[in-house]
Amino acid sequence: MKHKHTLSISVRNRFGALTRIAGLFSGRGYNIESLTVGPTDDPDISTMTIVTIGDDAIIEQITKQLNKLVDVISVFELTGHEFVAHELMLIKVQANVSNRSEIMQITDIFNASIVSIHKEALIIEVTGSTRKLDSFIELIHPFGIIELGRSGQVGLLRSTKPTDLIG
Amino acid sequence: MKHKHTLSISVRNRFGALTRIAGLFSGRGYNIESLTVGPTDDPDISTMTIVTIGDDAIIEQITKQLNKLVDVISVFELTGHEFVAHELMLIKVQANVSNRSEIMQITDIFNASIVSIHKEALIIEVTGSTRKLDSFIELIHPFGIIELGRSGQVGLLRSTKPTDLIG
Repeated sequence: MKHKHTLSISVRNRFGALTRIAGLFSGRGYNIESLTVGPTDDPDISTMTIVTIGDDAIIEQITKQLNKLVDVISVFELTGHEFVAHELMLIKVQANVSNRSEIMQITDIFNASIVSIHKEALIIEVTGSTRKLDSFIELIHPFGIIELGRSGQVGLLRSTKPTDLIG
Repeated sequence: MKHKHTLSISVRNRFGALTRIAGLFSGRGYNIESLTVGPTDDPDISTMTIVTIGDDAIIEQITKQLNKLVDVISVFELTGHEFVAHELMLIKVQANVSNRSEIMQITDIFNASIVSIHKEALIIEVTGSTRKLDSFIELIHPFGIIELGRSGQVGLLRSTKPTDLIG
């Protein structure tokens, strides 16, 4: 059965780590739907969140191979547990004096915020679930989307002690 | 001279594209400081934002090589132009009834929001510049950070027509 899988990976900041990790997925014919990698409070460690769609058994194999990489400290599959997964989007929308208030209304409803404003365009920051961001795009589409960038999901377990669940 | 470079890359969703792109950086001995890849409103195209630190001339070479990849539609270096670069962080902090209000105060000041609450912990979502996120971590550190995930930067040019600047 093909499902969406969200993996949280703790990685040592070693040269080429990202290439090796991404390579494990592409080597199996798996496309990474979204990937984020950002620093932690330890300068030597990064956290990666990878979202991929695929067969449960193969994802398990990939997880095992990930664990064998020296770059990888831990791999945890968030899917199946209670977790928060949020994404950030910056979206540049065509806007003029006549439709600006309508766009601002939609922005308010989504708890989003305008981060840049010009004569002909606005840049809006929206955060939340993938579904929320998709709905925002759908509603804002008629105004004219100039460009957009999405971060991909960052995921954290809701429980206090992820190690309790891993063990 | 070594500088921080923020590249915005428009990519075809082809199998292994991420591995090939990341490989160009690691092949040159360049570490990717942060990388985000997320969908656009076109299901066949993703946008990637890569932050790396390095020599201007070598980044220019990497940009040229990126442009030669069939996966790559366009590469634009945001650095040197007016751009917005925001990041998302989910951070799980130790919190109890006695210090919760103090943490909520800091959260308010940063325009951040609490997305999950437990007896012993809170998950807070913070967005903004890398510097803002770093400051938040510094202030919240004494309470006890359980874990955190950062998306890396998503960048958009402030100007309406990026193509005017590229050409």
